[in-house]
Amino acid sequence: MVKITIIGMGLIGTSLGIALRQNQQHKVFITGYDADQRATRTARRRLAIDREAGHLHDALHEAQLVVLATPARAMQSVLSDLAPLLSAGIVVTDLASTKAQICAWAAELLPAEVAFVGGHPMAGREQHGAEAAEADLFRDAIYCLTPAPDTPQDALALVESLVLAIGARPYYIDPVEHDALVAGISHLPFVLSRVLVEVTSHSPAWKEMSALAATGFRDVSRLASGDPQMHRDICLTNSAALTRWINEAIDTLANIRDAVEQADAEHLTTLFTNTQQARDSWLASNPRLRPGEAAFEDAPQVERGVLGFRVSSQRNKKS
Amino acid sequence: MVKITIIGMGLIGTSLGIALRQNQQHKVFITGYDADQRATRTARRRLAIDREAGHLHDALHEAQLVVLATPARAMQSVLSDLAPLLSAGIVVTDLASTKAQICAWAAELLPAEVAFVGGHPMAGREQHGAEAAEADLFRDAIYCLTPAPDTPQDALALVESLVLAIGARPYYIDPVEHDALVAGISHLPFVLSRVLVEVTSHSPAWKEMSALAATGFRDVSRLASGDPQMHRDICLTNSAALTRWINEAIDTLANIRDAVEQADAEHLTTLFTNTQQARDSWLASNPRLRPGEAAFEDAPQVERGVLGFRVSSQRNKKS
Repeated sequence: MVKITIIGMGLIGTSLGIALRQNQQHKVFITGYDADQRATRTARRRLAIDREAGHLHDALHEAQLVVLATPARAMQSVLSDLAPLLSAGIVVTDLASTKAQICAWAAELLPAEVAFVGGHPMAGREQHGAEAAEADLFRDAIYCLTPAPDTPQDALALVESLVLAIGARPYYIDPVEHDALVAGISHLPFVLSRVLVEVTSHSPAWKEMSALAATGFRDVSRLASGDPQMHRDICLTNSAALTRWINEAIDTLANIRDAVEQADAEHLTTLFTNTQQARDSWLASNPRLRPGEAAFEDAPQVERGVLGFRVSSQRNKKS
Repeated sequence: MVKITIIGMGLIGTSLGIALRQNQQHKVFITGYDADQRATRTARRRLAIDREAGHLHDALHEAQLVVLATPARAMQSVLSDLAPLLSAGIVVTDLASTKAQICAWAAELLPAEVAFVGGHPMAGREQHGAEAAEADLFRDAIYCLTPAPDTPQDALALVESLVLAIGARPYYIDPVEHDALVAGISHLPFVLSRVLVEVTSHSPAWKEMSALAATGFRDVSRLASGDPQMHRDICLTNSAALTRWINEAIDTLANIRDAVEQADAEHLTTLFTNTQQARDSWLASNPRLRPGEAAFEDAPQVERGVLGFRVSSQRNKKS
């Protein structure tokens, strides 16, 4: 029986609890806490937690693993509030979309005898809140783990077993490298989605336009329905990397605009053909994004690990 | 029995043929032509056409309605080649994504006794070619029609009956207004999709990034897998409107970048909350984008029209 405390009962924290409790191969006891008690109650009703905590102090009762599922910027104060409450040997991990800043806060604020392993499951939905939680949210998703060089092996094994228990795939990576990469393939996409909605919805012709908008608009704008607070926190905790990507996007937009204005058919054909090929190749190499097709070739071999969770026998090259 | 000729056996032309031939309420006889004979053969195998034409001249044999389904820029030469072959009373329509330029070419190149009705079904897939055609591609889609002020009523009724026969919803609109509106909700989205793929796939870290890319990247980049030739032609036949939207997108990206750099949390919260609300409201008002939910409130009342097709009894306010 592993005792786990999840702090933050939004989409991600609640989905994690449901996935862990539905796994029949091992037993967990989960305490949930959210500053908004209605969220904790919803999580309990969704069977994401065994026990509701009314206060942060009460939430840690006997926990071996503490999972932080709050928005990124709130991590600083949560880590600060938690620090005096944590006994030696407790392992802390988080689920936020940016890692360097949060790992730095953890190193600064947590006691030396408490291990911290940063985590980021590459999964989400545009809906948010405990009500939108899903047991399968993390299934087959890549789950980034960003341990520090001095993170104890058993702390790492515990967090990795959590990742495997929810059906995700551990991927070890340096926190700064993580932030640079996800700024391009995860954060720039939501910025572009929001730009599309911002410019079109402010048009005097939006009423007529919106009646014509179809599936292309729906898909490119999907991430604009994401949680504003989560996206704001991502921007503010990953500003250098994101700024660089936004500048590249501006340059490329200006380049396309110039080609359109100059009727440069050849340039447009080349750029559109290259992007089509790049996107199709990417899709073909990511079968986990096409349900029902073959699984990753590099799926980790698993063996029985600590505390009854399963642990992968091999780490990726990034660790 | 309505005799129809479809010129261009790509995704759209072939899907149209399949949809028409599957409609049991009336009989059609469809001739198909494509400069690439393999496409015509595929369309025949997909049961999109009754007869393959080997030459443009042969394609028009007894046709009452000619549907142009070629890329937008090819319309000029196709209209020019068709003009001497068309007998009086034939109705010509097209399926391209831009309308003002094509309507101008039709007015310039077609004989006075041949009616032209511009058309644009608001539907598509990122795959292209006859092989990707789908019978239900146009079901419940808005189908823009851009007749000229002097278009005869019976020509309009014939094209409208075609729209209704494939399950789409006719929407009358001025061709210049059409181009301005779709530049924002249909053309800007594919430009943004291509920008995302262009900047990320040229990164030295693309290999690592692409392994982490998940459903958000997949959806925002979807339109980058679209037909390069079709997108290029759209850019070149709708350059003024598209340029204006690209400039607005650049301004908004620069605005977000500045807020990120200056850690302006309030500005980001406002912009992200507004775009979330605008997108959610749009989605809620477009039930046709959520399969299985209620149909449009303004669905046209239908009655039996010319040639056995159904014709809507009411036109929208745009006509």
